[in-house]
Amino acid sequence: MVKEEIFAIGIDVGGTTTKFGVVNSEGKILEQDRISSNEHEVVEDFIDDLYHKLIPMIERAGGVKNFIGIGIGAPNGNIYSGTIEYAPNLKWKGIIPIANLMEKKFNLKTKLTNDANAAALGEMMYGGCKNMKHFITITLGTGVGSGIVIDGKIVVGHDGFAGELGHTIIRPGGRLHKSTGMLGSLESYASATGVRETAIELLTQHPEKYSLLRNYSINELTSETVYACALQGDTIANDIFEFTGQILGESLANFIMFSSPSAIVLFGGLTKSGNLLLNPTRKYMEANLLPIFKNKVELIFSELKESDAAILGASALVWELNN
Amino acid sequence: MVKEEIFAIGIDVGGTTTKFGVVNSEGKILEQDRISSNEHEVVEDFIDDLYHKLIPMIERAGGVKNFIGIGIGAPNGNIYSGTIEYAPNLKWKGIIPIANLMEKKFNLKTKLTNDANAAALGEMMYGGCKNMKHFITITLGTGVGSGIVIDGKIVVGHDGFAGELGHTIIRPGGRLHKSTGMLGSLESYASATGVRETAIELLTQHPEKYSLLRNYSINELTSETVYACALQGDTIANDIFEFTGQILGESLANFIMFSSPSAIVLFGGLTKSGNLLLNPTRKYMEANLLPIFKNKVELIFSELKESDAAILGASALVWELNN
Repeated sequence: MVKEEIFAIGIDVGGTTTKFGVVNSEGKILEQDRISSNEHEVVEDFIDDLYHKLIPMIERAGGVKNFIGIGIGAPNGNIYSGTIEYAPNLKWKGIIPIANLMEKKFNLKTKLTNDANAAALGEMMYGGCKNMKHFITITLGTGVGSGIVIDGKIVVGHDGFAGELGHTIIRPGGRLHKSTGMLGSLESYASATGVRETAIELLTQHPEKYSLLRNYSINELTSETVYACALQGDTIANDIFEFTGQILGESLANFIMFSSPSAIVLFGGLTKSGNLLLNPTRKYMEANLLPIFKNKVELIFSELKESDAAILGASALVWELNN
Repeated sequence: MVKEEIFAIGIDVGGTTTKFGVVNSEGKILEQDRISSNEHEVVEDFIDDLYHKLIPMIERAGGVKNFIGIGIGAPNGNIYSGTIEYAPNLKWKGIIPIANLMEKKFNLKTKLTNDANAAALGEMMYGGCKNMKHFITITLGTGVGSGIVIDGKIVVGHDGFAGELGHTIIRPGGRLHKSTGMLGSLESYASATGVRETAIELLTQHPEKYSLLRNYSINELTSETVYACALQGDTIANDIFEFTGQILGESLANFIMFSSPSAIVLFGGLTKSGNLLLNPTRKYMEANLLPIFKNKVELIFSELKESDAAILGASALVWELNN
């Protein structure tokens, strides 16, 4: 008798792109695809688009009968209500009952959580944190996302919204975060956007200093160009990573003194900068810890691709449904 | 038939005073007493002193046979190992196996946790947070302690030391904390010691400003005198509370975006300042929250006396032993 395989659909709704895939019970992504997140005026059109891309995948896996459900990770996704609530980076405003709408469209049980929590769940079930009960994931992308695991469970808080570490204030009265209006939040410094702003600040504050970065137009100044220049020994580019690592390291020290995790796992585009980012981050993290916390917390990059982690994590929500 | 009552001993080891009592299974403290925490060169002498005070209490409650154990809350108390580890405010240095020593002395099972976690446990079992699964307690005393409850459990982290929120940095590069050497930690501002330092700073930075506080000697400048002057309309005294509330409120906003609690419960000497402290704290807390967290979190004073909460919380560790 052939053992019948069952599948889940994992969907990662990002600010720009939505990635999705068919996942088996061992956490293997059989196939995946993507659509834009912000081309659809209403969420129903977005769901239609998803449906047309997913149906052929579902058919190739033997049809809906072989699927146990859909898991979604999305910004401000609320696990309790299945709604996306006031997500600043998405086009659909207000409270969006996405889990409910998906269930009706696909006739499959659907579970929603925050995108960063989905990545943390993927890390816990299929990544380097498989045997850890206490860790924090930080996604350093366009923004800064976070997922917190305590006692082997994702922390969602009383209302489902816990774990917004990117919006904690690390420089009171500091840099303006354009979409939230807050001053000095972690995200305004330790994101790709933040690195770009730091570059512009340092270049304009020190017009006398030579820098390879001056060969780029403002539009070309990205975390990638800063990285490329830093590798060539450019002082300002290296200062940018030192400063970014300082802000991130100080924030991580604060988080460690909150939940005392075994590890902090970094995801996202900025991690391509490797040790240029990791070394100053670790230095400032350790320098800002009470002695009882020093030299105990692993600071590592995820072995999973962020999008894979989020698809896997979203699908993991579904396997929980099955228990 | 007379129902036999069983008891637990709860002990709260503070930096200056150790309070202890006999507690029944309904959380009533039958009698309590105190000894100094820092008059004993070695912990064995401290335990001897405790023993001589506790034995008559135990006898009055029918003898050791009626007791199920001893619970202790102490700075840097580790629930996993039963040891006090490198507590900066205590005389006994290094790793002190206090649970083990107590068990041998009293022949009663002994459980240890962090003092602030004990207070949070007391709050959860016998205080205003009885029906809450997510809350944070902050003790504003000589220092700033904290206990974090998530999903109805005290957060202890991978090593037992989680919840040191007083040592998180809220003003990077800011005020020196004399015993940790850290710059800009919450404790260096939002403690009784911190209020005194703020008073000295504001008085010396603005020598031209009239203030009732100038009638006090440096030694008399305490959070109590600042409170008394603020009530009389003194501008600098009111500024001190505004500033303290700002620092505390900003920190609380960061904590809320971590674990999204239903409530934050304040304990300790500074809470005697009532609305003078509570109003600015709430204002700055709300101002630094993302919209999804605003106007959701109760900020309240505990209904329990802090020392009672810690004795009750420590004793609650023992009732858990019994399950």
